Amino acid sequence: MTDIIESIRSIVGDTGLLTGTDVSSRLESWSSTAACQAKCIVRPTDTRQLAEVMKLCHAAHQPVVTHGGMTGLVQGGCATPEEIVISLERMRAIESVDVENRSMTVQAGAVLQQVHEVAEQNALFFPLDLGARGSATIGGNLSTNAGGNGVIRYGMAREQVLGLEAVMADGTIISSMNHVLKNNTGYDLKQLFIGSEGTLGIITRAVLRLRPLPRSRNTALLALNDFGCVTALLQAMEASLAGSLSAFEVLWNDFYSLIVTKGKRHGQPLATDHAFYVLLEASGSHADNDRSSFEQALEQAFEQELIVDAVIAQSEQQREELWAIRDDIECMIEHLSPTLTFDVSMNISLMDEYVKEVKQKLAERFPESHSVFFGHIGDGNIHPVMTVGSLEHEIVRQVEEIVYGSLRSRGGIISAEHGIGLEKKAWLHLSRSAEELQLMHTLKQALDPRNLLNRGKIFDLPEQAQAAEH
Amino acid sequence: MTDIIESIRSIVGDTGLLTGTDVSSRLESWSSTAACQAKCIVRPTDTRQLAEVMKLCHAAHQPVVTHGGMTGLVQGGCATPEEIVISLERMRAIESVDVENRSMTVQAGAVLQQVHEVAEQNALFFPLDLGARGSATIGGNLSTNAGGNGVIRYGMAREQVLGLEAVMADGTIISSMNHVLKNNTGYDLKQLFIGSEGTLGIITRAVLRLRPLPRSRNTALLALNDFGCVTALLQAMEASLAGSLSAFEVLWNDFYSLIVTKGKRHGQPLATDHAFYVLLEASGSHADNDRSSFEQALEQAFEQELIVDAVIAQSEQQREELWAIRDDIECMIEHLSPTLTFDVSMNISLMDEYVKEVKQKLAERFPESHSVFFGHIGDGNIHPVMTVGSLEHEIVRQVEEIVYGSLRSRGGIISAEHGIGLEKKAWLHLSRSAEELQLMHTLKQALDPRNLLNRGKIFDLPEQAQAAEH
Repeated sequence: MTDIIESIRSIVGDTGLLTGTDVSSRLESWSSTAACQAKCIVRPTDTRQLAEVMKLCHAAHQPVVTHGGMTGLVQGGCATPEEIVISLERMRAIESVDVENRSMTVQAGAVLQQVHEVAEQNALFFPLDLGARGSATIGGNLSTNAGGNGVIRYGMAREQVLGLEAVMADGTIISSMNHVLKNNTGYDLKQLFIGSEGTLGIITRAVLRLRPLPRSRNTALLALNDFGCVTALLQAMEASLAGSLSAFEVLWNDFYSLIVTKGKRHGQPLATDHAFYVLLEASGSHADNDRSSFEQALEQAFEQELIVDAVIAQSEQQREELWAIRDDIECMIEHLSPTLTFDVSMNISLMDEYVKEVKQKLAERFPESHSVFFGHIGDGNIHPVMTVGSLEHEIVRQVEEIVYGSLRSRGGIISAEHGIGLEKKAWLHLSRSAEELQLMHTLKQALDPRNLLNRGKIFDLPEQAQAAEH
Repeated sequence: MTDIIESIRSIVGDTGLLTGTDVSSRLESWSSTAACQAKCIVRPTDTRQLAEVMKLCHAAHQPVVTHGGMTGLVQGGCATPEEIVISLERMRAIESVDVENRSMTVQAGAVLQQVHEVAEQNALFFPLDLGARGSATIGGNLSTNAGGNGVIRYGMAREQVLGLEAVMADGTIISSMNHVLKNNTGYDLKQLFIGSEGTLGIITRAVLRLRPLPRSRNTALLALNDFGCVTALLQAMEASLAGSLSAFEVLWNDFYSLIVTKGKRHGQPLATDHAFYVLLEASGSHADNDRSSFEQALEQAFEQELIVDAVIAQSEQQREELWAIRDDIECMIEHLSPTLTFDVSMNISLMDEYVKEVKQKLAERFPESHSVFFGHIGDGNIHPVMTVGSLEHEIVRQVEEIVYGSLRSRGGIISAEHGIGLEKKAWLHLSRSAEELQLMHTLKQALDPRNLLNRGKIFDLPEQAQAAEH
């Protein structure tokens, strides 16, 4: 075993290899206090080095776990003492920006926020955005098919990529660095690596699709009295604001009230006695006309009695204050500790009943529980967040049974944007059929026959399938 | 062999099975005058029947070719006398429309135009659109990842799908009929079947994503003096019209002049002495504001001397007249007969030089040749169309060498939206690396180990790999 570490050192050099306390001083995951247990952390500087490392690992049947910014929420980056971590932290380069064709070529370790900044310096825009932007890397965003803000207009991470390069389990480099919008020359291989959580290949570089930088932005916080108004408002705004609607975030009263009464950084832009609050944003290209369209759309919604109160941001500062309420995850976690966070998806029309059922079942089973609900409702995505006073395994399982069990009859999905990792593996069968799981196994076995890449994340392979190769 | 046909008959019934002249009276492909050569044509009425047929074919090592509307342009539907055709012509149902969640569930044989009509009846919009809309089926659109009009705003067929059902080579039904925008529960299996031209599975049903029906539409035909103005105008319009820009089609002078002077149905909305013509369209949600934004954007383009003349459609009829010039493929084919059609993609900045090089090489090699150029330039996609007076194999190869050879130094792509089929198979290596082709083979072998599904389309498997299973 020392052998492989020394062989890897000969490829990446001393600074490319961390062992001992350099490993254990890192945390196992974002939400854990446990130390990283990996055998070592390998830090290649380019694709060629990484490919050489994987050739060694493949020959030695050595499993690996890939690390980006470690901001994932489902324990997709946890490593056992038998595993080696491959960290992309020395592959952060933004290689080029092509203004005319609106694309950017980056190494997978590039940090999301830096991609935003470089795009804006070129009067362009990279629409993928999420709270962890300061640490999250493009490689992590793509391998988890990240969602976040703006999905309603621009789609998820999958739709922001033109080309991709990945290293396979055996060290083969698949370079599909396509840079055009349309390419129907055989199988679209990049799709294999996007959203597969590092289990089919290690993403090393990407060509990102950029968009024109919006010239106008209009933001409002709206109060609504029932969920029927929420769904009617969403349809009305999708029609009235069409291609410019860029956020439709819903805060249940429990969430809004908690944040504006307990959070230290907020005023109360709207009273706390409304059932629902919608944070609405549109971004367009013509300041005057866009403002007028936005205001007319809201006036119409008032006339139709969809909304009962509203605050329209009059400045960038007011806009940030409205978003700060939606984004005050710290305040939420502080008051709902220890915290359980979920990420479910379903038809919008079913959400109100779903939330009521979860709340009622929680209250019955855990009378002391406290839960709040919010999410990207325009995308069909809710985040239920709660505390039941314990993170004990059996208790968590009971909470999951309530949150996921209530999805069953509604055709709901156990993970809208966070992925499966280790955390949701036991529940994957609720959202995917036996035939689908079998096809996932077939793909995994075809592309990574020794099961070396992020082993045991998303699903476990059946014993016999794992044994076959040995 | 009679055995398998009779076994299939027992599944699909007499009306589900065509043989003899019922087969040979059909054409081999849209652009061919040769008869369909298949052993028989099987017409299942639902997924279950189709799955039973595939189980039989799998057991008998019987290869199949799937037919939708037969409007493909790369001979992806050609069948040999040893193959059975599976036609989706009795699986045309539009099963349901979910207005609140903006989705439509269809069988794969549903015709694109009918999908458009049903969406509009529900005040919704299915953005995928192309000339063959009256015959093309959703299954064909998805299996070829069709492009067409509107890609600049809404993306290709791949981005219009929420869920998919497919039958694998062994008859297994993979039902991934997801109906929500966000679903990160393991591998996104539908991506395997989209754009793989029927070689990895037979698409049987789909959940389509619908959009709000645009309320306003502004269309103009513009004249430009050089290609630098074309690229500058595209950037200006993408910024000025942002989310509402829905078409940016460019006609080279050779195309425009041919159509308006030879076509019987057109006036000459602009003089024929400009180097380039742009058909520009924006669709939005607010008639007055959108018109004002559109006119201001064009005024600015005049002031910046990007455009030298313009006609803005004042009515739906005028709009249709402008589009009729772009869409007059009949006139083009009549005057460029026998016709060779191409579909290439590259960075927009390289297009002008590319077209000049192709024209020059054609003139040198085929002094009597006549070529025109047009395309979805907003998507980086040109259609070179030409005649050199012959469709003889060696002549066609020489033309392909000119059209594809000139892409090499520009990193161009041999198929933007039409796919590979049989027609471009020999050139696929120009756009994909040996490692990518190997990974395509690995996928094909993992999902269709007996090589039964649309055998020999896109690529040939290496001999030994095909032999291994036998």
